[in-house]
Amino acid sequence: MSKSATAFSGVFIIGTGLLGTSLGLCLRGNGVPVWLSDLSSSAAALAADYGAGEVATPHPDEVEVVVVATPPDVTASTVAQALTEFPQALVIDVASVKRSVRDDLEGLGADLSRYVGTHPMAGREKGGPTAARADLFVARPWVVCAGDTVSAQSISAVHGLVELCGATIHDMSAEDHDRIVAMVSHVPQVVSSVMAGALNGGDSKDLDLAGQGLRDVTRIAGSDPGLWIQILHHNAAPVSALLADVAAQLNAAAVALSDTSVSGAKRELAELLDAGVRGVSKIPGKHGLSKQFATLNVIIDDKPGQLAAVLTDVGEIGVNLEDMRLEHSPGAAVGFVELSIQPERVHELADALEARGWRIAGERA
Amino acid sequence: MSKSATAFSGVFIIGTGLLGTSLGLCLRGNGVPVWLSDLSSSAAALAADYGAGEVATPHPDEVEVVVVATPPDVTASTVAQALTEFPQALVIDVASVKRSVRDDLEGLGADLSRYVGTHPMAGREKGGPTAARADLFVARPWVVCAGDTVSAQSISAVHGLVELCGATIHDMSAEDHDRIVAMVSHVPQVVSSVMAGALNGGDSKDLDLAGQGLRDVTRIAGSDPGLWIQILHHNAAPVSALLADVAAQLNAAAVALSDTSVSGAKRELAELLDAGVRGVSKIPGKHGLSKQFATLNVIIDDKPGQLAAVLTDVGEIGVNLEDMRLEHSPGAAVGFVELSIQPERVHELADALEARGWRIAGERA
Repeated sequence: MSKSATAFSGVFIIGTGLLGTSLGLCLRGNGVPVWLSDLSSSAAALAADYGAGEVATPHPDEVEVVVVATPPDVTASTVAQALTEFPQALVIDVASVKRSVRDDLEGLGADLSRYVGTHPMAGREKGGPTAARADLFVARPWVVCAGDTVSAQSISAVHGLVELCGATIHDMSAEDHDRIVAMVSHVPQVVSSVMAGALNGGDSKDLDLAGQGLRDVTRIAGSDPGLWIQILHHNAAPVSALLADVAAQLNAAAVALSDTSVSGAKRELAELLDAGVRGVSKIPGKHGLSKQFATLNVIIDDKPGQLAAVLTDVGEIGVNLEDMRLEHSPGAAVGFVELSIQPERVHELADALEARGWRIAGERA
Repeated sequence: MSKSATAFSGVFIIGTGLLGTSLGLCLRGNGVPVWLSDLSSSAAALAADYGAGEVATPHPDEVEVVVVATPPDVTASTVAQALTEFPQALVIDVASVKRSVRDDLEGLGADLSRYVGTHPMAGREKGGPTAARADLFVARPWVVCAGDTVSAQSISAVHGLVELCGATIHDMSAEDHDRIVAMVSHVPQVVSSVMAGALNGGDSKDLDLAGQGLRDVTRIAGSDPGLWIQILHHNAAPVSALLADVAAQLNAAAVALSDTSVSGAKRELAELLDAGVRGVSKIPGKHGLSKQFATLNVIIDDKPGQLAAVLTDVGEIGVNLEDMRLEHSPGAAVGFVELSIQPERVHELADALEARGWRIAGERA
C-alpha cells in the first residue's frame, strides 16, 4: 500500500529539534533531498552540520512533503502557513497532541485534504538537534491520524515515511490518540510530578531510605516543564477528566485510611490495590506479551566491566534476559543488578551464577 | 560500639518468610546457632532445608536475641509473647511499620526495656523462604528505632546484627520512620496502584502506545495486595495525610486543565511540574550523589549475548555505567538498552560505540 522510500522527491522539515533533525538524518541517509528551517537559525545550522539536510526554503515545486516539527503551541499556525505556501505538498506534523491541532486548522480554514496529523512516540521529551539520531524512530510506535478529508495517496505517502524510519504504524482518530496518550503518557506525567513534588516536604536525609519503587514512580518527573505545559494545555480535556478520576480515587483511599475501623474501608483499599495489579498486567511487555517474569538480584562491585561480566555469564549459561535494572543504595560500595527472566529458569540461573562465584541477594519467582 | 558478630550465643527467628529465612542463612553462615519457628510447619521445615537453622523452640537460657519476622498484623502480639517466654532475651521485629507495633506493645503492657523495632529495607515485598538469600541485606538500609526505654547494650547488639548482615544502620524514632516510609514507599505504592487501575478503563490495544514512562510509574502496582493492606492499615495516619495532599494537588491540576483560559491556571501547572523536577532531583543516586546523568539509547537485537556484548564494549571504551535499563516496543524485533553515564562522556561513548558497529537511537545530555 505504501509508496517506496526512494519515491520521495523532496521533504521540507520545519523545526530542527530532536524529532525534526532525526527525521532529516534518516531521510538523507535514504537519499531523499531535505530542506531545513527553524526559528533559531543556529539550531537549523547545527542540524545541517549533523547532516540532516540543507538550510533553505525550497521552491514549492520541489517539495512533496512538509513536516512540521515545532512545539505544540505553534504547530497549527505553522501547518496552515505551509499548506498555503506549498499548495501541491502533503503537510504532516509530529506534535504529541492531535485534536487541538486539527481543530485549530479547521478554525483557520486550512485545506485539510493535504494534511495528516502524526505522532512518533520516540525518544525523550528533552533534547535538541545534538541528541538526534537517524535511528531514533526504529521500532517505536508512530501514530497516524489521517482523518476522512485526506486522499488515500496521501495516507500511503505518510505510511511510506513511517516505514522508512523503521517505526510501526498505528492508524487511529485524533480523538482516540488524545484519549490514549492522556492515559498512557500525560496523566502519568502529572501523577509522577505531583508524587515527586511531595518529596519536597521532607528532609533530604529522609530520602536515604528511598528504594527502587520511588525512583521508578518519580523518574519522569524530571521532564522539561516548559514542553509539558504546552502538551497538557493542548490535551486539556482528556487529561483533566482522567486526572480528576485519579485524584478522587486517591482521596477515597486517604479517607478510608483516616479511619480504617469504618465498615468497608479495608475492602475499598483491597479493591484499589487489586485494580492496580490488573491494570499493570495489561501493559504489554516484550513483543506484546503480557506476563510476569521472575527476578534475581546479583551483587556486583562498583567498577567498570562487572555488569558485562555477569551478563556474559548469563549468556553462557544460556538464559535470555527479559529485562534488567541496576539498583544502588546510598553509602554502599556494591550495587545490584536485577535480572528478569522466565520463571521456570530462575533457580537454575541462581545456582549457575553462584557456581561461577556471583553472590545472589534475593530471587522472586 | 557494636558487639562482634561471633558474640551472638543464639538467635530464635519467628516467621520464616523472605526476611526471616534470609536472616537465618546469614547468621548460620557466621556460625551463630539459629532456631526457627513459623505458623506454617512446612514453611519452617523448608527454611531449615535451605540451611537457615533448626526447627525447634529453644530453652530460654539459650536465646540471646529473638527476631520476630511475621506479617505486620501479628507482629506486636508475637513480640509480646516472646518477651514473656524469653525473659532474658532481646526481642526485635523487622516489620515495615514501627509506631503501631510499639503502641500495641505499650497497650499490652510489654517490657519495652528489651524490645527494639527495626526495618530492613531489603528485597521485594513478595517472596517466601525459597526467595531467601544470605546476602539479602547487603548494602541495604536497615532502620533501627530503639526508643528511649532500651539499654545501650541492647542497641549495640542490634547494631552488631545489622552489621553482620552487611546492611547500613539508620537510627531514628518510630515516628520518623513511619513518616518517611509513608513518603518514600507507602504513598508511592498507592499512587502507582491507582494510576495502574486507571488503565482498566481503556482497550488493551490502547496500551500498545505505552512507553517506558508508564511502565516505570506503574511497576510497583504489581505488588501483593494482601501484604500492602496490612502495611497501609498499620501506618494509616501518615499515609492518609500525605495521600490527601497528593489527591488535592492532582485535583487542582484537573481543575486548572478544565479551563486553561482562567487566570493563573498555567502558572499553577508550571509550579506543579517545577516542584516535581526539584523533588526528584533530591533522591540520592549512586553513592548518595544527587545528580542527573546523560543517557544513550543503543539498539540491540533480541538474542542472548547482545546485551553483554554492548556492555563489554562500554567497559573496553572505559566508561562507567551509572544506570541502565532495557526498553521494548510491542511488535518490534529489536530493543534498546538505555545507558546512563556521566554527561561529559556521552558524545565520546556514542561515537566509540558507533565505530564498533552499534546503532544509536538517541542520546540526551
